[in-house]
Amino acid sequence: MVAEILSVGTELLMGQIANTDAQYISRRLSELGVTLYRHTTVGDNPARVKQALHEALSRADMVITTGGLGPTEDDLTKEMVGEFFGLPMELDAKSLEAVRARMCRIGREMTENNNKQAYFPRGAIIMPNACGTAPGCIVEQDGKAVAVLPGPPREMKDMFERQLAPYLRKRSGLHIESRFLRVFGVGESKTETLLLDLFHGENPTLALYCGAGEVTARISARVRAGEDATPMIAPLEAEIRRRLGDAVYAAYGPGEEVSLASTVLKMLIARGETVTAAESCTGGMLVSHLIDCPGASAAVLEGHVTYSNQAKMRVLGVRAETLAAHGAVSAECALEMAEGARRESGATWALSTTGVAGPDGGTPEKPVGLVYVGVAGPDGAKAERLMLRGDRDWIRTLACQNAFNLLRLRLLAR
Amino acid sequence: MVAEILSVGTELLMGQIANTDAQYISRRLSELGVTLYRHTTVGDNPARVKQALHEALSRADMVITTGGLGPTEDDLTKEMVGEFFGLPMELDAKSLEAVRARMCRIGREMTENNNKQAYFPRGAIIMPNACGTAPGCIVEQDGKAVAVLPGPPREMKDMFERQLAPYLRKRSGLHIESRFLRVFGVGESKTETLLLDLFHGENPTLALYCGAGEVTARISARVRAGEDATPMIAPLEAEIRRRLGDAVYAAYGPGEEVSLASTVLKMLIARGETVTAAESCTGGMLVSHLIDCPGASAAVLEGHVTYSNQAKMRVLGVRAETLAAHGAVSAECALEMAEGARRESGATWALSTTGVAGPDGGTPEKPVGLVYVGVAGPDGAKAERLMLRGDRDWIRTLACQNAFNLLRLRLLAR
Repeated sequence: MVAEILSVGTELLMGQIANTDAQYISRRLSELGVTLYRHTTVGDNPARVKQALHEALSRADMVITTGGLGPTEDDLTKEMVGEFFGLPMELDAKSLEAVRARMCRIGREMTENNNKQAYFPRGAIIMPNACGTAPGCIVEQDGKAVAVLPGPPREMKDMFERQLAPYLRKRSGLHIESRFLRVFGVGESKTETLLLDLFHGENPTLALYCGAGEVTARISARVRAGEDATPMIAPLEAEIRRRLGDAVYAAYGPGEEVSLASTVLKMLIARGETVTAAESCTGGMLVSHLIDCPGASAAVLEGHVTYSNQAKMRVLGVRAETLAAHGAVSAECALEMAEGARRESGATWALSTTGVAGPDGGTPEKPVGLVYVGVAGPDGAKAERLMLRGDRDWIRTLACQNAFNLLRLRLLAR
Repeated sequence: MVAEILSVGTELLMGQIANTDAQYISRRLSELGVTLYRHTTVGDNPARVKQALHEALSRADMVITTGGLGPTEDDLTKEMVGEFFGLPMELDAKSLEAVRARMCRIGREMTENNNKQAYFPRGAIIMPNACGTAPGCIVEQDGKAVAVLPGPPREMKDMFERQLAPYLRKRSGLHIESRFLRVFGVGESKTETLLLDLFHGENPTLALYCGAGEVTARISARVRAGEDATPMIAPLEAEIRRRLGDAVYAAYGPGEEVSLASTVLKMLIARGETVTAAESCTGGMLVSHLIDCPGASAAVLEGHVTYSNQAKMRVLGVRAETLAAHGAVSAECALEMAEGARRESGATWALSTTGVAGPDGGTPEKPVGLVYVGVAGPDGAKAERLMLRGDRDWIRTLACQNAFNLLRLRLLAR
C-alpha cells in the first residue's frame, strides 16, 4: 500500500508552525509497513486543496490529510474530499450531539458554523475526536481511500492511534513492530562499529539514531497482522546487549517515553533511595529533568543551585581553601559540592556539576565545555572530568546526562 | 513572485526529523513578500525528485529545494535540476578548493564522492557554504529559477540569509519588515478584543500568535526594497502599547530571542540587582530558565528546590506551624519560601513557587493546577494564587512565567 500525506493550513505556508503532524504520521506509517512517497502542504484554499488531492490520489492508494476541519469558512478539507468523490455532505446526528456536548462542557456557545463539523461525505467512516471538537473520517471509493484528520497535534495523534492505525493495519495486512534500546557512554560511530555486521539483516532491521550524547538503536520486525514479532526481535536485542553491556540503559516499545533521568529515578524509587543535586553550570536543569518525571517526589527531596562561590560555601559547605587552590571548576569542588549536598539533605545520593557552559567565561586552562560532575553516596564520592562541545544549552544538557549516567553506573554496581 | 518549496530526503518521509527547513524558509519568504503556495517532500529518488520539480516549476516562478547535496550517490538534487533544464554539470574550481580545504580542516579524507559537490549545472550562480561542505546554487532559465540549498538547518539558514535572501529581495523588489510585541497577563481573546479594529489594516498588518501563557503580536509592513518601514510600524506599535500598557513586556525584530526570563534578567542586570529562587512544584525550572540566558551569573547567585516539607523548613526557614495550618500549597508557604530564600541568600529579590503540578496529588480543596507564586523584595513580600490548566510540564511552565511576570511588574513599579 502506497500513501501520501496532504497537510492543509495557511499557517504552515506562513511558517508559523513546523509540520510535526507530517513527521508523526510518517514515522507511524513506516512502523505500520505503509510506504510513503510524498508530503504535500497547501493553504486553506478550495481550488488548491482539490488539485493537490487529485494529484495525490492519482499516485497513491491512500491519502491522509491533516487540518482544515475547524468551524470557520476557511476549513474545507472534508468538503473538498466529498466534492472530489462526488459525494453529498450528510449530517451525522451522533457527531452533532458530540460537538454540542463538547461546546457545552468547555462553556462555549454552539454556532451555526459548528454544525458544519457534524457533516460528512455520504458513507464515510466517522472517527470521533476524543480530544477536541472536530471529528475526522475515512472515505473509500474504488479501492482508494482518504483519511481526514484534524490539525492540532494532540487531537491528530489520539485519532490516529485509536482509529486510523487499526484501519491501516487491517488494510495493509502487515505490521512492523519495533523495539528501542537506549545507549549512553558509547558514541555513535563506536556503536556503529561494534554492531556493524548486524545492520545487514532484512527482517528484522537495525537502525541507529542520535540524541543528547546518546544513541537509540531501533530493531524493527515485519510480521503479518496479528503475528507476534518477539521471537524475531529478542535474539537481536540480546546480541546487542551482549556487545554494548551496561551502556544499554533502557529498552522500550513505540510511544513510550524514556530518558536517562527517568531511568535513574525509577531505579531509586525501586530501592527506596533518594537523591539531591548541587548544581553550578547546569543551573537547575539537572533537578528539573528529574522532577519532570511524574512520581519524582518519592525520590527527590530537594536540590540546590549554587552559582556563586559564596553560595557553594554557605549552602554546601565547600571549603574556601578548596576554591582558592583549585577554583570552582575543579574535581575537588565537584566532590565537596556532592558531599555537602548529601550531608545537608540526608539524601542517599547527591549529584553535582561545576563547569564553564559559555559562551563567555572560558580561559586557556579552563575552556568553555570543561565540566566536572560528581556523585556522592553510601560508598563515598567520585568526580569525573568532561570536555563537552556545543553551545551553552547543549553543554548543560550533556553535563546533566553524564551526571545521571554516573549515578546509574554506581547504582548498578551496588 | 510565486514560490514553492521542494524538500528532498528519505529521512523526512520516514519521520526521523520534522521539516523545520520548510518552516524557516516559509517564514522568511512571507517576510520577504514572496507568495508561497505549496511545500512538497519526496525521498532521495531520482525519478520522484525530477517529477516533483517538473510539477512545481509548472506552477511557480521559483522553486527552493533543500537536501540531497551530500557526497553520497543518493544525493542528486543538483543533478536533477541540471537534467531538468538540459544543462550539463561542470566543475567549479573554486568550490573544489573550498570543499578540499574544509575536508582538510575537519581532518577527513577527500574522496571521489566529495568531488561531486563541486559540480554545478552550467551557468549556475554558486552559493558557497560557510557552515558545511556542500555548496548550493541558483539556476535560472526562461524567467524561472531554482535555488538549491543544503538540508542541515544550520547550513541552510546561513546560506539563505547571506545569499538567497538578497537575491530574492532584488527579484521581488519588495521587502516585508516585521516587529514583534510580546504580551503577558492579557489572554489571547482579550488581546484580540482590545485590538479588534487594528486587524483590518492592509499595510501594515497585525497578527497574533500564542505562546506559553503569552501572546505575540506581529506588525508587518510591506515596503519597496531599500525603503525604511519604521514610519509605518512605529505608530501602530505605539497604539498597541497604549491599549495593552504594562502587559507588553518586550518589542524586537525577526531572529531575536526574547522571553519573560531574559527580559527580567536584563532589568536586574541594568539595576545591579540579584535574584534567587525557592521552588517546589516547578522543581528547578524557574532558576534553569534564568540561567539559560547568557550573562545570568551577574544576577543569579543561587536557587533552591525544596520539594519536601523538611527541605522547606531546613533550607528556607518555613515554619512548621505555617505548614501545619495551611499546608505546603498555600499563599502563606509561598510567602515564607520567598522571604526565607531572600534572607538566606542576601539577594535583592526572591521568587517562590508551590503547587500541584499533577498528574497525581490533587485533592478537591487543592486540585491539580493550583499554584502559588511569591516574590520577596526590598518592599516586602507578596504571593499570588493561580489556577492553571494543562499537563505537568505545562503547569510548571506557566507557573514560572507567572513568577517572572510578578517580579517584572514589581521592578517596573519601583
